[in-house]
This record gives sequence, structure tokens and C-alpha cells, in this order.
Amino acid sequence: MAAAAATHLSVRAAPALRLRGKGTCRLLSCYASSSPPPPSSGEGFSGKVGFLGLGIMGAPMASNLIKAGCDVTVWNRTKSKCDPLLSLGAKYESSPANVALSCDVTFAMLADPESAVEVACGANGAAQGMAPGKGYVDVSTVDTATSKLIGKHITSTGASFLEAPVSGSKKPAEDGLLIFLTAGDDSLYNRVAPLLDVMGKSRFFLGDVGNGAAMKLVVNMVMGSMMVSFSEGVLLSEKVGLDPNTLVEVISQGAISAPMFSLKGPSMVKAAYPTAFPLKHQQKDLRLALALAESVSQSIPTVAAANELYKVAKSLGLADQDFSAVIEALKAKEQNPQP
Amino acid sequence: MAAAAATHLSVRAAPALRLRGKGTCRLLSCYASSSPPPPSSGEGFSGKVGFLGLGIMGAPMASNLIKAGCDVTVWNRTKSKCDPLLSLGAKYESSPANVALSCDVTFAMLADPESAVEVACGANGAAQGMAPGKGYVDVSTVDTATSKLIGKHITSTGASFLEAPVSGSKKPAEDGLLIFLTAGDDSLYNRVAPLLDVMGKSRFFLGDVGNGAAMKLVVNMVMGSMMVSFSEGVLLSEKVGLDPNTLVEVISQGAISAPMFSLKGPSMVKAAYPTAFPLKHQQKDLRLALALAESVSQSIPTVAAANELYKVAKSLGLADQDFSAVIEALKAKEQNPQP
Amino acid sequence: MAAAAATHLSVRAAPALRLRGKGTCRLLSCYASSSPPPPSSGEGFSGKVGFLGLGIMGAPMASNLIKAGCDVTVWNRTKSKCDPLLSLGAKYESSPANVALSCDVTFAMLADPESAVEVACGANGAAQGMAPGKGYVDVSTVDTATSKLIGKHITSTGASFLEAPVSGSKKPAEDGLLIFLTAGDDSLYNRVAPLLDVMGKSRFFLGDVGNGAAMKLVVNMVMGSMMVSFSEGVLLSEKVGLDPNTLVEVISQGAISAPMFSLKGPSMVKAAYPTAFPLKHQQKDLRLALALAESVSQSIPTVAAANELYKVAKSLGLADQDFSAVIEALKAKEQNPQP
Amino acid sequence: MAAAAATHLSVRAAPALRLRGKGTCRLLSCYASSSPPPPSSGEGFSGKVGFLGLGIMGAPMASNLIKAGCDVTVWNRTKSKCDPLLSLGAKYESSPANVALSCDVTFAMLADPESAVEVACGANGAAQGMAPGKGYVDVSTVDTATSKLIGKHITSTGASFLEAPVSGSKKPAEDGLLIFLTAGDDSLYNRVAPLLDVMGKSRFFLGDVGNGAAMKLVVNMVMGSMMVSFSEGVLLSEKVGLDPNTLVEVISQGAISAPMFSLKGPSMVKAAYPTAFPLKHQQKDLRLALALAESVSQSIPTVAAANELYKVAKSLGLADQDFSAVIEALKAKEQNPQP
Repeated sequence: MAAAAATHLSVRAAPALRLRGKGTCRLLSCYASSSPPPPSSGEGFSGKVGFLGLGIMGAPMASNLIKAGCDVTVWNRTKSKCDPLLSLGAKYESSPANVALSCDVTFAMLADPESAVEVACGANGAAQGMAPGKGYVDVSTVDTATSKLIGKHITSTGASFLEAPVSGSKKPAEDGLLIFLTAGDDSLYNRVAPLLDVMGKSRFFLGDVGNGAAMKLVVNMVMGSMMVSFSEGVLLSEKVGLDPNTLVEVISQGAISAPMFSLKGPSMVKAAYPTAFPLKHQQKDLRLALALAESVSQSIPTVAAANELYKVAKSLGLADQDFSAVIEALKAKEQNPQP
Repeated sequence: MAAAAATHLSVRAAPALRLRGKGTCRLLSCYASSSPPPPSSGEGFSGKVGFLGLGIMGAPMASNLIKAGCDVTVWNRTKSKCDPLLSLGAKYESSPANVALSCDVTFAMLADPESAVEVACGANGAAQGMAPGKGYVDVSTVDTATSKLIGKHITSTGASFLEAPVSGSKKPAEDGLLIFLTAGDDSLYNRVAPLLDVMGKSRFFLGDVGNGAAMKLVVNMVMGSMMVSFSEGVLLSEKVGLDPNTLVEVISQGAISAPMFSLKGPSMVKAAYPTAFPLKHQQKDLRLALALAESVSQSIPTVAAANELYKVAKSLGLADQDFSAVIEALKAKEQNPQP
Repeated sequence: MAAAAATHLSVRAAPALRLRGKGTCRLLSCYASSSPPPPSSGEGFSGKVGFLGLGIMGAPMASNLIKAGCDVTVWNRTKSKCDPLLSLGAKYESSPANVALSCDVTFAMLADPESAVEVACGANGAAQGMAPGKGYVDVSTVDTATSKLIGKHITSTGASFLEAPVSGSKKPAEDGLLIFLTAGDDSLYNRVAPLLDVMGKSRFFLGDVGNGAAMKLVVNMVMGSMMVSFSEGVLLSEKVGLDPNTLVEVISQGAISAPMFSLKGPSMVKAAYPTAFPLKHQQKDLRLALALAESVSQSIPTVAAANELYKVAKSLGLADQDFSAVIEALKAKEQNPQP
Repeated sequence: MAAAAATHLSVRAAPALRLRGKGTCRLLSCYASSSPPPPSSGEGFSGKVGFLGLGIMGAPMASNLIKAGCDVTVWNRTKSKCDPLLSLGAKYESSPANVALSCDVTFAMLADPESAVEVACGANGAAQGMAPGKGYVDVSTVDTATSKLIGKHITSTGASFLEAPVSGSKKPAEDGLLIFLTAGDDSLYNRVAPLLDVMGKSRFFLGDVGNGAAMKLVVNMVMGSMMVSFSEGVLLSEKVGLDPNTLVEVISQGAISAPMFSLKGPSMVKAAYPTAFPLKHQQKDLRLALALAESVSQSIPTVAAANELYKVAKSLGLADQDFSAVIEALKAKEQNPQP
């Protein structure tokens, strides 16, 4: 059962939840949010849900909550982005503080650490509407220090705080298949579990605030480095006269098959990099991971080598393309140096 | 249809075959090998099959052919290894030459290039039993030069040659789920396709002899480099206080999920490396891949960095353990320098 | 002539000064500091010199100024370290503010950025004794941001500021053979040039504050990376049966001969690392250089690879030994991993 | 004394020789080669000297021998290259075999392993003119295997063999300042020491044939890696707004000062790479060094990273320029990838 599963303090997932049939259960649990839940259940979320930040990720996440029957109040810096959600039945408040004031738990999905801090702690920020009994769940991807800062502001009001960065980009957000890497207040974790299950396919509770950010960083680090290994394989296969599309297919059938390779491989072969995760963000994550590794004196040589290539790609003008464009950094261009 | 699919000269897989229900089809096709096939089918293999080399890979592969109803004749340097197959119904011949003489197509699965050459081209080697109309399929993993050498010996007898190294280790061999990376004679490829489909889940025809070896090398190169990236993540997560088992689970649910990580991650966390693919072989493949890349001036920096770690692991005495033991090379050990 | 040489705004050294016979000239110029200089000379420093920080570097630097006849006033956090200099004729003041108040120019040589900031900007810090007409020369090695912060505090009093980190360690400090990498106020540079020439063998004026720190970082970066290349050569020669001492000697005679190799090579062969420049400081400089390179998207792959080895060396417990101990990170130790 | 110094079997240089005034001594010792030496001396070479191969290196080396008074007989594949030496007083023979037949010791300086083998072991090769009492000194740079092959052919005639690759390029060859890394027959080493001292400034006897080649490889490996470290520094300094020429000058005064940096730095800053040592040869040496390191499981990560850049430089079309052109591989070029 979810409530029990989440009382533990140690780092673990709640696999039982991930195995549930999703449709029925969610509808049930979130339906419960606008009418009394079955007394013996304990499952489902009862209360009003706030959602701050309706960008590429936030909009589909909030949308999924509404579709599941939750009572959702939204806010976005650019108000027009709220309209599609209002038409789905969401309510609107004119500031983060007002959203927090009118809701039981408030989610925030902002683009960067600065916005996350501003929305939580700034003038008319969420903290001003917080109080004991309320909860704030920051699902933005921020660094450990930022997460701790926000947590401190929120908890100083007596409210509870949960950091919950997500693994997954636009498509999984739309499909309700995100992965939540949470840390902070474990009873808030238990309380919002039904909501996380509406938006995601799995969730992990990792202990103290900061651990969610760290876990996400390590995952993204492995991803960035793997992408370079894969790029090296694609280019080498091509250079020696093999069809790189065949390499992509062969890889897709074996032990190193990964969704990322199958998804991005074919467009990489065509030198097309439609942005799902911007290269500059991947490079930033490698930089942060190298700093994290340095703080504990852990050697990570392939990450260090990979990072140098992302830097080359940035200087090639590819910062805003998909991170798979790092393959361009491995293509030497013929040139005529000065005599 | 297999015959049609394989007439192409370009590099591609035969996806239709992979989508077939396997059980029935195989039984049918290989049953056909010892009695006339249904006249309108054209599918299935009609003839006697030789199999040379019954080690970790060869034994289950030959076994699958026998179980599918094929007429199999075996040989192995150490004769006792033939016994389990004889009890399944295989025939025996006393030399590679005699196997080749008595069979229509002969498969060879040897441990290293030297053995592959000896069994094909040496005294009483398979080439001495070859003749026009017969085929030799070498499924060993050898370098390009060795493959070409064997091919030259075989085709000089008028027989056909197909190199067909496999992707996959012991378990896929037992389960009939190998991937064949073939190159050489395409009509031999068409002819043995039903047999490859008994032993594997997919097959690729890649053109001239050498391309199969090259493709396998590139795949293994990406694998070796990915394993290091993953190892760096596992150790970093542990060093910063996260549970590395949770990292393995988080990775298993996202875009970089790969069977290799799920399979080996849990034992790597426990510093256990039961050998599926020996570290020394992985390092050798990285060395060969670096040489291949150099021959075409392709930069592969993460592979170069990864290779250095496999070398460290070898000097730590881990050459015969699984290649996932490369993680040990990233663990610095406290010590007291100065004499 | 020094005054003329230093009026330039561009980055250059003042080679004429480096070619001067040092003995006579210094004595003359600093003698001038405690009595009126020859009216037509323009060379030499006239005024009182303060010196804050008398550690491994500061003590011999201040000592050289005193021996050259300068009127020197010292301060050190631990007062006892002032005694040897007082016995040479130095005066003493009880705080950085008082030193600055009583002197025309004040030098500071602190161990780290925190101390440098505290001594310059803290309570009773040098800035509190600064005023128009006075100069502050920080010869500590700090990062660009720290240097700018200190400069801002100093110049807000109307005084002039020069950053002047030195290249060279204990021995060159004692021998008056340091290299000054200065930036900031160029008329202060001209004014203190005779003092720099007492303590060093050459000096560069590099423009705006921050450039001195950046230049020092780049030099140390190349040094750190070269040390790893050299270590790899030493170990490889030994492993293949050559005498590594012979390698050191052969290198000392050719195009890659460098004082560092000749000085440290013989002890490295014996696995002895008497500390001249602590490994942890070298690793820190590589980290800062990687950050600097990242800020301009410059790829520096050998530095990135080298940095990983310094991290390994740190985790081997070698942080406080000489940076040449990085060679230990390349020695794989036999071990028995768990089964 | 040279004769005594060279009787040792262990690896060491003969420093005494390097400290001698060169002029007088050489004239004396080589004058002795065409008239009886002073009976008690033991120094000087008495006999006829052959020289095969008169390219960029061979011509000035042979020229120095003639100028020192030696009795020199030359041969070159393209006969016209012999003319300048004949005009200095050299004799001519029409084949390597004839040179060997008419001389006491024969030197060979060929461009690559193939030529070295051909000239020593081919038809009319030197081996056909060899006999007990004669010596063959191969000063070409070849790999260990080639050197052993040549040595075997020579010694099978009863003659003695010394491998003696040189460190130093065109200018040191002209100036008689080469460094000889010899191995093989130590009494031949003693015998030709006076000749080596005419052509070089120092010489090392390193034991068994193969050790000279290995030592040269390690030195060149460190050189190739250092050049990349230096290139990274030059580019980084430029990117952050420093004058790279100043970096070159600062480096030239400190602990990492090396002749290579001072010589090549200024032209590298101008992106000019006049060929002294071709980039493709440097890359080949790194490849061979990586193979050597692998054979003994020695990790050399900065060399591995550097090698990848030389490969990039090769694919940029810089193979025949000076190896300092590797800096181009670190310059990312703006481009417009496909959308």
C-alpha cells in the first residue's frame, strides 16, 4: 500500500505502485479529491492542487491531473498559457502566493533555478501563501543548493517541502510516464503519491532534500556520456563503409539496446537534431556532475572526455539543438590552415 | 520471404523473419531438412548440417539445431564434449575434413582466430572436405584479416563462404536468441537463413567478407565504453550517499535503460563479476576498434579513455572476470607510498 | 627604463629590466627608498614598504627587500613569524590597517583567497589604512573574482591596486628569482617595478585586474598536464625494462627538456614526493582552468584526463604531498576483488 | 675514458664524454682514423667508415664525420645526393654491399623500416658485404621488430650490430648535437663511440637490441602529449583575452620551460607549422607507444587523449605539416549543421 510504502526513511522505490493498472486507480483516487474518499482506503488525494509554471513540461502534467479529476488551480507568468488548462476546467489565481493560499498542495515546474527561487521565495511567491498543513512540491530540475534554499523558505512557514525532479521529457510528460526522484518530507511524499502516480509511471523517495537533485544529475551524466559513445560508434561504422542505420538496428536488438539510441539514432545518421533536451543543458549537467565527483574525489574519465566534446559542440553553435548534436563535435572538417 | 529478403546486396536486416512466430516455422523448416519440404514453400533448409566446435556457445547452438529436427553431424577437438549432442541424435565424424565431406553446410564456432584458422585450413581441416555446392559458415568472432584468410581457403575449393559472428553470449545461445552479423556469399546466406533463424532472433547481411567482423567490433566498442560510463555513475552515486541499487532501478525505467545495466548492475554493486564476457576480450575489442578508427582517422575519445581503464583492470588481475569488473579500475585504494 | 617600459597598456614583459645586472642596481634603487633618490634617476623606489603575510613565500620575499635596503614594515597573523625579519631590521605594526597607514605601498602574500580577502577588506584590514597616493600589491594567488573584489575595496579608498601573483615556489622566492604576473594599475606597476625586481627575475604587466590570475592559471594548467605526460613516460619505460633514470637523463638533453623534469624526475623514480607544490593545489588549479575553459567553450581534453588522475591521487591520500605524486595514480595495485 | 665507460652492460650514459671540449678531441680522435692513433690512447676510431642514406639527417651526419677527418665512403639510392659529400672528400661505392665490403664500420640512416630492411638485408644489401670484425650501426628510427630483424641478418654474417636511433632533428644533426640511443653489441658501441661523439652531444647504451627503439618511442610519446598540453594552454590564453605570445614568454622563464615550446610557440600562435617533424610520424609514434603500453598493461590516459587529437589533425589534412599543427584539432570551427 502506498501510505505504508512511503513511511520508510531509506532510499527505495515503491514498486507495488508501479505495477498497478493505472487508469482505474487514478480516476478513483483523484475523483476522491473533490468528494470524500472511501474511509478505509487511505489511497487517493483529497484536497485542492495548485500548479505553478505551465511550460513544455508543466502544461501536460497539470493537464493530466485535471483529466484525472483533480481540482487544479494554475498560475503562469505569461497568463495566456493558462488558457488551454482553464478550458479543461482548471481555476486561476493571479500569483503564486494566491495559488498556495487557496490550495492544499502546490506543484511548481520552472525552467531554471532562478525562476524556481523567484516563484517560491520572491514577492508574492508561494511561500507567502504557505502555512502548517500545506505542502509544496518542486518538480523543477535545480541544483542541490537551490533546492535546499527553497525548502528552507517553505518549511519556515510551517508547511512541508518535497523536491521531486523528474526523469523524462515532453513525451513522457504528456503520456503520464514520468519518473519522480523525490526527497524531503516523507509524509508529504505519501500524501501526494496518488498525484505523482497520475503524472508518472514510477517514483522514488531518496531521503534528505538534495538527494533528488543528485540522483537526477548522476542519471543525466551517464546519459550524456553514453550519447558520446554511441556517436563514436555511428561515425566509425560509417567511416569503415558500414550502414550506420544497420548499426542502430543491430544495437537495438542486443544487450546495449536503449530507448535513447532507437529514438535518436536514425535522425543522428541524417545529421538532424530536433531539440528534446538542449545540448547546453546536457553540458551543464556534465559540468555539475564533474563538480560533484570532484567533491568526493571520484574519478570519472569518460565523463570528462565526453564533456570536452559537448564544449566543442557548443562552440560549433549547437547549444540549442538536441544534445545528440554532440556527434558533430566528432566530425573533423577539412580545412586549409594558414601557410 | 527469406529467400527474397536475402537477395539484396545492400546492408539490411530481414525484419519479416524476426516477426514470424518462431516455434512452428522452425520445426517445419528444419523438419524439411531430413524429408522433402512442402513443394510450394521454398522455406526451410534441406540437407545435412555440420557443426565444428562445441564450447560454451557452440554446444547450445548445435543443440538447438538438433532439437529443431535438423540432421546434424558434430566434431570437437575434445571428443567428450560431443557426447551430450550425440545423445540428442547428432552424428559424429573424426575430423573437420570428414564433417565437411559428409555435410552440405558446415558451421564453425571456435574460441579464437588461431583455432578458427586451424580448423578451417589446417591438416584435416574443413577446407579439405569442401567442394562446389557446399557452404562453410564461420560464426566465430575473429578479426577481418582472419576471416578473409579463411574465406579464401574455402572458396578456393569452389565452396561458398559466409562469415557470421554472433552478438549475444551464453544465455541467448541457449535460448535461440542470437543476432547474426553475416557477410560474404549472399546465396549461401539465403540458403542457411532457416538455420540461422533456429539459432537466433535476427540476422543481417552486410556485404563483403570483413563487414560482419567490423560491425561486431563497433557494437562491442560501444558496449565497452557504455559499461565504463555506467560504472562511473554507480560509483559516484555511492560516494555521494545515494543507494547505487536505486540508481540501477531509476536507469532501468528511463531513456538509457539497457538490458546490460539491469543484468549486471546489481552484481556490480556487490563487487561480483561472474564471467559472461571476459574483461580481457572486451579490452582486446577496444584495442581493435581503436586500430580500426585510426585506419580511417576517426576520433573516438571516450573509447580511448575507457580502454585505459580496462588496461588498469587487467593489471589489477581481473582479465578473466566479467568485463563489468572494469568498475574496480575506478576505485582508488588508500595506500602508503614512499618506501 | 622602468618608468617608460611600464607606460604601455598592452601585455608585455619589460625585458630590458631582466637583463640588468641585478646586484648593484637593486641596492641602489632600494637604498633610495630610505633616502632621497638621485633626482635624475627615476629608477628605484622611494618610500616605505609594507608586507603582510610571512609564510613560506612571504618571509623570503620580505627578507630580500630588507636585505636590498628597503624600509620594510611587516605584519603576520601569528606574530612570532615576524621575529626573524625584525632582527633583519624590519619594523612591526599590529594590524594590516596600521601597516597600510604607515607605508606608501603594501604587499600582501596570503595562503588562500579567504585570507587574502580578510587581510585586505576585513576589520582592521589594509583597506582601512589606504588613501589616495598609496598602493596595494597583492602577490597572493587567488581567483579572478577574489582579485576583483579586493581591488574594488582598495580603489574605493582612492588608493591604487595591482594584482601580482608569482610564478615560482620556495626556492625562487629565496633566490629573488620569481616571475610576477601583474595586472591592474599601471602607474603603480611602474612605481613598484624596482621592488619587484628585487624579489623576482622578471615581470609582466597584463592589463586589467584578473589577467594576472588567468595567466597564472593557464601556466599551472600546462604544468599539471605535462607532469602527467611525464609520469606516463616514466612508468612505461620502467614497465618495458628500461631504466627510468636514463629516460629522465635522455629527456634532459633534448627538445622537451624542462627544469621540472630534471628536478622532480629522480625522486619520482624513487616514489618520493617532498612537497614543493601540494598536489591538492595543482588539482584545484586544473579544476579552475577547466571552469575557465568552459566559460569560453575551449576544449582541453588532456587537461580533463589529467585532472581525473589528480583526483585519484587525492583519494589515495596524497593531497598534501608534492603534485608529482600524481604518478601514483597511474600505478595499478594488485588486489583481490570479492568473489 | 670512453672505452672504459662503455664496457658496462647496464643502462647508462657516458657523462664524461659529454663534458669534454668537443672540437679538439674530435679532430684528434678522427684524425687518428686515417693514421695510427697514439698507442696509449685507446680513444679515436681507426678504420674506414661507410655511410648509407644521405637524406635530411644522413647528409649532415656524414658531412660532420668527413669534416672531422674520417675516411668516409658513401652510398645513396639517388646518386646525385652523394655529390656534396664527394666534393668534401668522401669516396663512393655503387651498393650497400660494396660499402660494407670496403669499410670497417658502416652507418645507415634510412627514412623508414622498409628502406632500412631493404638496404641492410636486400639484394646487394649491406649484409652481403659484412663479415667477422666488421660492424653495422643502424641510426634509423625503426620499430623493435624491424631492428631485431636487421640485427639478425647482420650478426648471421659474423659481424656486429648496434641499433642507434637518434633524438634530434635536422638542426642538431647539422650541429653535431644529436643524442644516440644505442643498444646491441657493446664492444661495437665502444669502438664507434668516437664517431658518435663527432655527430652527437651524448650517447646512451641501453642493453639488448630493441631497447634503443623503445627508449626513443617513450621520449617521443612524452613529446607528443606535451605538445597537446601546450596547445591547450595557447588556445585557452587567447580565448580569455590574454596574448598567447606572452604565455609563451612566461612559460619560457619557469619550471616548465622547454626548448620545444620556445621554438614552436611563436609560429603556432601565427598558425604556421613549418615541418621539422611531420605530424603523421608523431601520430604513428603515439600509436606505437599505446601498443607498447598495452603490452604491459600500463595506463597512459593523457597519451590516449592526445592521440585522438592527432587523428583529428590528420583528418583535417595536416599529416605532412609539423606536429605542432595538432593545435588546429582543438579549434572548433563555426558551421551550419543541417536543420
